[in-house]
Amino acid sequence: MPTILGQNQYGKAENRVVKITRDGDTHHIKDLNVSVALSGDMDDVHYSGSNANVLPTDTTKNTVFAFAKEHGIESAEQFGIHLARHFVSSQEPIHRARIRIEEYAWERIATSEGNSKFIGADEVKHSFARKGMETRVSQITYDGENWEVISGLKDLTVMNSTNSEFWGYVKDKYTTLKEAYDRILATDVSARWRYNWTSDEQHMPNWEKSYEQARKHMLHAFAETYSLSLQQTLYQMGSRIINSRSEIDEIRFSLPNNHHFLVDLEPFGLKNDNEVYFAADRPYGLIEATVLRDGVEPKIPVDMTNL
Amino acid sequence: MPTILGQNQYGKAENRVVKITRDGDTHHIKDLNVSVALSGDMDDVHYSGSNANVLPTDTTKNTVFAFAKEHGIESAEQFGIHLARHFVSSQEPIHRARIRIEEYAWERIATSEGNSKFIGADEVKHSFARKGMETRVSQITYDGENWEVISGLKDLTVMNSTNSEFWGYVKDKYTTLKEAYDRILATDVSARWRYNWTSDEQHMPNWEKSYEQARKHMLHAFAETYSLSLQQTLYQMGSRIINSRSEIDEIRFSLPNNHHFLVDLEPFGLKNDNEVYFAADRPYGLIEATVLRDGVEPKIPVDMTNL
Amino acid sequence: MPTILGQNQYGKAENRVVKITRDGDTHHIKDLNVSVALSGDMDDVHYSGSNANVLPTDTTKNTVFAFAKEHGIESAEQFGIHLARHFVSSQEPIHRARIRIEEYAWERIATSEGNSKFIGADEVKHSFARKGMETRVSQITYDGENWEVISGLKDLTVMNSTNSEFWGYVKDKYTTLKEAYDRILATDVSARWRYNWTSDEQHMPNWEKSYEQARKHMLHAFAETYSLSLQQTLYQMGSRIINSRSEIDEIRFSLPNNHHFLVDLEPFGLKNDNEVYFAADRPYGLIEATVLRDGVEPKIPVDMTNL
Amino acid sequence: MPTILGQNQYGKAENRVVKITRDGDTHHIKDLNVSVALSGDMDDVHYSGSNANVLPTDTTKNTVFAFAKEHGIESAEQFGIHLARHFVSSQEPIHRARIRIEEYAWERIATSEGNSKFIGADEVKHSFARKGMETRVSQITYDGENWEVISGLKDLTVMNSTNSEFWGYVKDKYTTLKEAYDRILATDVSARWRYNWTSDEQHMPNWEKSYEQARKHMLHAFAETYSLSLQQTLYQMGSRIINSRSEIDEIRFSLPNNHHFLVDLEPFGLKNDNEVYFAADRPYGLIEATVLRDGVEPKIPVDMTNL
Repeated sequence: MPTILGQNQYGKAENRVVKITRDGDTHHIKDLNVSVALSGDMDDVHYSGSNANVLPTDTTKNTVFAFAKEHGIESAEQFGIHLARHFVSSQEPIHRARIRIEEYAWERIATSEGNSKFIGADEVKHSFARKGMETRVSQITYDGENWEVISGLKDLTVMNSTNSEFWGYVKDKYTTLKEAYDRILATDVSARWRYNWTSDEQHMPNWEKSYEQARKHMLHAFAETYSLSLQQTLYQMGSRIINSRSEIDEIRFSLPNNHHFLVDLEPFGLKNDNEVYFAADRPYGLIEATVLRDGVEPKIPVDMTNL
Repeated sequence: MPTILGQNQYGKAENRVVKITRDGDTHHIKDLNVSVALSGDMDDVHYSGSNANVLPTDTTKNTVFAFAKEHGIESAEQFGIHLARHFVSSQEPIHRARIRIEEYAWERIATSEGNSKFIGADEVKHSFARKGMETRVSQITYDGENWEVISGLKDLTVMNSTNSEFWGYVKDKYTTLKEAYDRILATDVSARWRYNWTSDEQHMPNWEKSYEQARKHMLHAFAETYSLSLQQTLYQMGSRIINSRSEIDEIRFSLPNNHHFLVDLEPFGLKNDNEVYFAADRPYGLIEATVLRDGVEPKIPVDMTNL
Repeated sequence: MPTILGQNQYGKAENRVVKITRDGDTHHIKDLNVSVALSGDMDDVHYSGSNANVLPTDTTKNTVFAFAKEHGIESAEQFGIHLARHFVSSQEPIHRARIRIEEYAWERIATSEGNSKFIGADEVKHSFARKGMETRVSQITYDGENWEVISGLKDLTVMNSTNSEFWGYVKDKYTTLKEAYDRILATDVSARWRYNWTSDEQHMPNWEKSYEQARKHMLHAFAETYSLSLQQTLYQMGSRIINSRSEIDEIRFSLPNNHHFLVDLEPFGLKNDNEVYFAADRPYGLIEATVLRDGVEPKIPVDMTNL
Repeated sequence: MPTILGQNQYGKAENRVVKITRDGDTHHIKDLNVSVALSGDMDDVHYSGSNANVLPTDTTKNTVFAFAKEHGIESAEQFGIHLARHFVSSQEPIHRARIRIEEYAWERIATSEGNSKFIGADEVKHSFARKGMETRVSQITYDGENWEVISGLKDLTVMNSTNSEFWGYVKDKYTTLKEAYDRILATDVSARWRYNWTSDEQHMPNWEKSYEQARKHMLHAFAETYSLSLQQTLYQMGSRIINSRSEIDEIRFSLPNNHHFLVDLEPFGLKNDNEVYFAADRPYGLIEATVLRDGVEPKIPVDMTNL
């Protein structure tokens, strides 16, 4: 046989599960998009079409919905851990499960006499509005022994309207760019951080709190860094997380440089004093890098932040 | 000539203008997507290709950016009024201008020692994050005499996790749906409301305040209505705005019914007590209607809320 | 009651029905996206939530799939006619039905010993690939007496790499554009044409042939027009259809001017002799117009080509 | 320093270059989307913000457009090779360049007296329509010594309306799926194949011909395989390419199982004899695998086909 099978995996992608938890009149939402990928002894289904080792993707879908009832959804990470453990431990031919989850955030609709922060006795407690464009993401992988949990977010659009410069760069025969001493710095943050929790023996992180804190530190670093390059800002965002959260060892970013070009208003007799910008679509700069705790081996794949 | 020209318009669409206003160290953003459509004596350019009456779309683009400097951007509506007036009054062949604007909201990034609501002396005042998925929209039309301003929003996703029923409907030979006495009601609100300000003689509304109030009343009505049909909820949302805001005479909604189907867990020996839902993509119900102040003539086009 | 209900409609949108017809071993596909909108005596469901007059959107969905079996899908238009007639004639409260259909084209996969045009006895006759990005669209409306059929297409991307000029336009203080004597003309055609078939008494057009011919004439006019403005090209495309197809009385276009800017290569010591272009995203020119058979009343709504 | 920098790269993404080549009156188009990613001695720009080693992304953009003039665009692969070689060999701090290219296909508009295949003397030779939804992709990587070229395509939607079964699979407590003996098999092919050309010493493949042939063999295998599982079909598609094209050593697929569910028409007294299907959006099965020439080391990253 001149060709052979290499890495392979299968499962049901994009299971959209919404879980409502009723605490008296107060409802809580978890809104997830769950994708399952399983691998193991799967040569036969590729070579001959025999499905004898194949748990159908329809079953993996059913399991996602059943587990939302059986285990609840405490956090995306914890839910993924339940699922991954189940597939690997209950199906002999399956040696590895990778669960990817996107989580969409909702906030309470503030009502006439109150607001979303302090819901009183007379308030509507079951009404929600989708919050933000950003999506929380998580990938949980289990091989029967070790866990890998990589979490993060994507589509978090941020902008500094000043405190950004760009100069002192290499100039070759194709360089026409003028140096900038006060520019807009804007990006759509895509970040993935890896937890150093890898075994059931270890104390498990508080996934919800860890996410909130990592996100907060990252935003503070973006806002507080006086930036000479987007790379410098990226590094500050990453090292702030590593330094603040001991449960996180590695983080990778993919940051488009969302160009805001100062419009030339001189032909109209006007001076543009860093006021009016054209927000361009394409092309855009794209800055990608990993920031690591010193001494740690990097494991987040290079392209993962672009998925 | 067996064929003739009918309604026609032209202009530059999707001019992405970002305006930064510096109030000392505190910066303010207006982030707009402006589309210009002009009409008038344009037969020749269609019949013969003569551009003698045509102000290039490139010029309409330049005007958008120049006006951001010359007039500032107090509100999307006020900015559109400046632009529409300019094109109609400065170009003899142009008899009518329609300016469409999308506005993207940003909020300040809360920093280490403070938060976004109360920015203190030591805070970062130039850092922002994109707020929400919803887009504020406005359409300003001027024919040299009368104004029509239609504002609203789209992509505001909301959900009630209870207080929604659906029963007592017509049943024919193709009906299989079971009645529901406690269901999720979820939609992506697309709304357009028309102001009764039509002339420079009238007192102009406070566009920013009016938008905030209309949005708030609409959300309250959504949350507070015990719903027997999405149509009923729609009507409550519309009438709440008309009754609360005297400057608004008409509102039209396009509300997809974002189905959340209760998953059948019985095959797995589990009871689904309104807990686990499958969020479906397509098909979806689509409910569209206009709500009017009594005695007023409707003017918002039927399809406008789907643009 | 200070507020009243205006125009309203409801139904199930985006029913994705695929119909396979087996002619011996040779299979045929119709792949449609069908949206139903019904209107009539629907005040109660808005005012009180009573669904006594409401045929559920779920039933309209079931009807779409059942009709694919009962009537087959000869053409999108004929299928919509079956559906519209059914809803209006079988449900007393429903006075008007509007069926919108998108159709996706497939072509046969050419196989080893043959090709898609001439399928021989030994060929695979059940394998298909999606053809093109363009989508055929149709809207069928029925009020119990009269029919209105508006068909067309969207997302048909075309380009002329020469034979396009743009000069002789109005210049004001915001004009900076240079005249062009040889430019790329590119657009994504969105077109809707209205048939003059309005009654069951009339001879019904051959919908499939009419679509193919209208599309062909439109493309020829695009290719063969030496263009002084996109408006001129648009008018030629429209009048070519009206003049060639007696069953069509009106056509409306929405044509973005997909700008291809000649890149300035002089800083690199290179001459750009209409060779290297930057394909821009936004902003874009947007040209919209109706072309009519002389003496006919226009009925295609202004915004319909942008849906 | 407790944190360090890991893998990093930067460049300008999505440069939309269109190249027109005039062969007398006959024009030819190449329409590319080019993304540049460079890496090397870039620690300083991350740690201190010094741009002393940074060739601006604006310059990489300029280079793309200049090279379209200087070298022409013979094929996406050849164009990427020119670019990658340039960046690595002309900039000392840059040790590795990765060029990603998407190519959009155009076909000639057939005109009145002829057709696209045989353009005669009187034909329009400068008019084109975008062909298909599929996108040809290529990634060229160079480190100063070795080349890696990975090419392929995405968004090629195909369907077999019969000759697909699915049965004999594992059943656990969450399995409800019924076995299928005649189902639709549909997918959007995303494929990446790796060439064994790695050095300037080797004879370079004919990139255009190799692409056409690999695509053709893949489609034939899809059409001609009687399928017991999508995995089996995938393996046949991959091995057909490896066996037919000696210049290709490895191929990876990501194949969504685009579910077409047979609609239950029994409630309406109708029999659905594999005729009427509901085309579902989400969730979908997702099958991913690598097929290799025996003895070859796999190098295509697991997630690359999902980009």
